[in-house]
Amino acid sequence: MTIRPATEADLGTIEALIRGLAVYERLADDVVMNAELLRKGLFGEHPYAEVLIAEADAEPVGFALFFHSFSTFVGRPGIYLEDLFVKPEHRGTGVGRALLKRLAEIAVERDCGRLEWAVLDWNESAIGFYKKLGARPNDDWTVFRLAGESLRNLAG
Amino acid sequence: MTIRPATEADLGTIEALIRGLAVYERLADDVVMNAELLRKGLFGEHPYAEVLIAEADAEPVGFALFFHSFSTFVGRPGIYLEDLFVKPEHRGTGVGRALLKRLAEIAVERDCGRLEWAVLDWNESAIGFYKKLGARPNDDWTVFRLAGESLRNLAG
Repeated sequence: MTIRPATEADLGTIEALIRGLAVYERLADDVVMNAELLRKGLFGEHPYAEVLIAEADAEPVGFALFFHSFSTFVGRPGIYLEDLFVKPEHRGTGVGRALLKRLAEIAVERDCGRLEWAVLDWNESAIGFYKKLGARPNDDWTVFRLAGESLRNLAG
Repeated sequence: MTIRPATEADLGTIEALIRGLAVYERLADDVVMNAELLRKGLFGEHPYAEVLIAEADAEPVGFALFFHSFSTFVGRPGIYLEDLFVKPEHRGTGVGRALLKRLAEIAVERDCGRLEWAVLDWNESAIGFYKKLGARPNDDWTVFRLAGESLRNLAG
């Protein structure tokens, strides 16, 4: 199994993996992304995120999509892992751990203080896996979101 | 009251406001940031975040520090508000709302799908304020974090 940074030639693969993740998270109805938005966001004038692709026998089996955060208290950037997904038929073979390990390496290489990601509270198998790696939940915090009409209303 | 983007000349102001926020959040012991790390992170070769400064009578009274996220399900970038702080003596004068409104404007200008931020669960006055603006909590998700030794261990 190998892990490599994605290029624009991987767009179709990335889109399919994102849709696979959405189905797994029972959130497929929330996906309004399309190929052109994805191209613009990842490989346009201002790339907003980076992607790692995991391959086995030259076939994509999983991916990680991440961007940089910044902690003012630490004074350093962090890595925020937006998506981590391994195709169902390749689970339990170390792909998820290998993607997280590569992200931890990138975090250390780039002098980042943190690697963070959000987990759905019902996903106990993922939570157990993350705790075994030494990750700790930010239990005292809740993320709030403004979107759609509420966001436009505040903008005025 | 005016709101403007910060420049490198504001570094001392930004550092003082971050320390003020940390005291307010009862997290002053977590602050390991220093002026040089802040300069590098905000105004170095790769700026990781942007800062807005709110001023009244030409004096800084609050700030917002943010960076871009990316939602694969939406297919668009978002804005993640890392820090929002208004000096205690200037609370209740609309500074916080004005900073959030300016962020919402920037989100709309930049075609972002979301404006998000984390709130400490004990901070009921902030939570009430955010809900009045139309923000909704991501109640089904928990953020996990790898840092320090756990992060270095996974990197190997």
